[in-house]
Amino acid sequence: MTKRSTLAITVGDPAGIGPEITLRCLVDPAIQQATHAVAYGDPAILARAAEAIGLNVRLNVIANPRDGDDQPPEPGVIDVHDIGVIAKADDIKWGVVQALAGKAAVAAIEQATHDAQSGAVDGIVTAPINKEAVWATGSKFLGHTEMIADLCHAEFADTMFVVDDLCVFFATRHMSLAEAVASIKCELIDPQVRRALTALSVYGHDKPRLAVAALNPHGGEGGHFGREEIDEIAPAIAAVNEDISAGRIVAAPVAGPVPADSVFHQGLQGRFDGIVSLYHDQGHIATKTYDFDNTVSVTVGLPILRASVDHGTAFDIAGTGQASPATMRSAILTAVKFADYNDRMKAQYGASPNVN
Amino acid sequence: MTKRSTLAITVGDPAGIGPEITLRCLVDPAIQQATHAVAYGDPAILARAAEAIGLNVRLNVIANPRDGDDQPPEPGVIDVHDIGVIAKADDIKWGVVQALAGKAAVAAIEQATHDAQSGAVDGIVTAPINKEAVWATGSKFLGHTEMIADLCHAEFADTMFVVDDLCVFFATRHMSLAEAVASIKCELIDPQVRRALTALSVYGHDKPRLAVAALNPHGGEGGHFGREEIDEIAPAIAAVNEDISAGRIVAAPVAGPVPADSVFHQGLQGRFDGIVSLYHDQGHIATKTYDFDNTVSVTVGLPILRASVDHGTAFDIAGTGQASPATMRSAILTAVKFADYNDRMKAQYGASPNVN
Repeated sequence: MTKRSTLAITVGDPAGIGPEITLRCLVDPAIQQATHAVAYGDPAILARAAEAIGLNVRLNVIANPRDGDDQPPEPGVIDVHDIGVIAKADDIKWGVVQALAGKAAVAAIEQATHDAQSGAVDGIVTAPINKEAVWATGSKFLGHTEMIADLCHAEFADTMFVVDDLCVFFATRHMSLAEAVASIKCELIDPQVRRALTALSVYGHDKPRLAVAALNPHGGEGGHFGREEIDEIAPAIAAVNEDISAGRIVAAPVAGPVPADSVFHQGLQGRFDGIVSLYHDQGHIATKTYDFDNTVSVTVGLPILRASVDHGTAFDIAGTGQASPATMRSAILTAVKFADYNDRMKAQYGASPNVN
Repeated sequence: MTKRSTLAITVGDPAGIGPEITLRCLVDPAIQQATHAVAYGDPAILARAAEAIGLNVRLNVIANPRDGDDQPPEPGVIDVHDIGVIAKADDIKWGVVQALAGKAAVAAIEQATHDAQSGAVDGIVTAPINKEAVWATGSKFLGHTEMIADLCHAEFADTMFVVDDLCVFFATRHMSLAEAVASIKCELIDPQVRRALTALSVYGHDKPRLAVAALNPHGGEGGHFGREEIDEIAPAIAAVNEDISAGRIVAAPVAGPVPADSVFHQGLQGRFDGIVSLYHDQGHIATKTYDFDNTVSVTVGLPILRASVDHGTAFDIAGTGQASPATMRSAILTAVKFADYNDRMKAQYGASPNVN
């Protein structure tokens, strides 16, 4: 058997659905064929989750993440990297915020990030964590992404959504819609468009085809329904396109602003490789209504590959077996695909002298 | 053969793609089986369109729209209601704004609306018109919907999108996103929610399950990303739900505000019958990214059934045979389904003394 790529799957908050969806994915024959996915977590926690959902698995603790990557996968066997935080599963209650759970979640992320940086694994896929549990450990990070970006000394970390073959970027994200609208300025859009083009190049598009969504209905209808398209968005696109036509950026001319009720459809039909969404819900509504379970988040700006589900710990159903592993599965398969571009990520985003 | 319902299909602007997509739909065996669809237009225009796209059809001009509704449909035969405006197809150029084309478009709409009001047909499906061509006739209507609403003396006319079994309503529509955000007030949402519930009842849901989308990311995240959910939307929903729990409105409790990147997915999974979208693109992005070709517009507030495509005349490709009839086909099939509720539409929206 040829070697499979090795991915670190951090199991997330041990009190949430992370352990069980990780288990379900890692015994999925399609996943086992596609990659050597290693659960980063505490064996006791994984064993309890398996028992809780009635999944018959054997946990195989391995010393080196790549152990077994050249062997045919064994049905029902899950390779585990023991992070050594929780010895007794009884120390963790299902579905509540606990500092020990936060500590375990952080330890898995730190170990996985370290291993991705050193090349011991080809990328990370992260199950959901609980922010309050992480904060209870004394950590001050807003979330996963900030923590990993810090560990990698990354200059920035953007969320990119991937659905089918389409990448969706966000010019603004976690702010009110009123604030997002007020933020739509040429000075914001221009660098975001350039960052999106760079990201598309990194993730395998040698001449990326990018479109920018419009803000207003019908793309503003010639200024009748808002002037942002005319005053802010089109000038930003024009500035980037000047650099493209002069050969300073290798890309197809950036399209847009394209009315938002067409642009995602066009992208999904294959007309574009990427779309810049101007506000959180614009890109979220498009991707998640189109295919809720297969919308995967990839962090752009890191010298390593990191894919993630976009859902939470679902404390209310943790341990009941109801949680769907669909998005986690999709995140792992997306990571398998993107692992091909690890060298490009390192070259583009790993310039920081402190890395490694 | 049992009688089929009879629908009037107005062919729209004769210089656009309306005639050709109407022809393609009306020879579609599935459409022919589902309904007796009659093209409202000029035979000369339909004959030219058939020739232009190489479609072998026989046009059968009928005196009464229901003629033939009890006969098995004949393959390749299209029943036509001659509106008698354009005698020679050469008088109309493809793809340009012309007053005569506008006159023909208006005549078809007037005749179809009249026939729907009198009961001569069970509903109208409208192909796209060109506003400027209509204005060139001296008409002052903003569009199709306003024209039909006026002919029906309707108090209001709202656009509702239908995709799969989900109905999507719009609290605001043709204005900038900044204006839409500023409009999100309890006083606006409350009556819109009630109108949506009424519409769902009219269209066959005896105990409608409605949700209201949130405005801000994560539904405002407890006020961190905007306060409209707390200050405006939730109070409006609560006021309606008070009337529901007191039995003054027959409906399931209205859900929401639900984060917009979940609510449409949940609706399409069958959890809701309808969703109130707060701004144009919110509902448009959701439905059109989900299924561009099968998003149909239905006009709510009329005592008659009117379904429509949401695309334009596509003057650039008219007569070339490239235009897809997919949305028109879907509009006709939606109208077939909704024709069952004609009595309810008349009872609910036809109270105006001038109607009929």
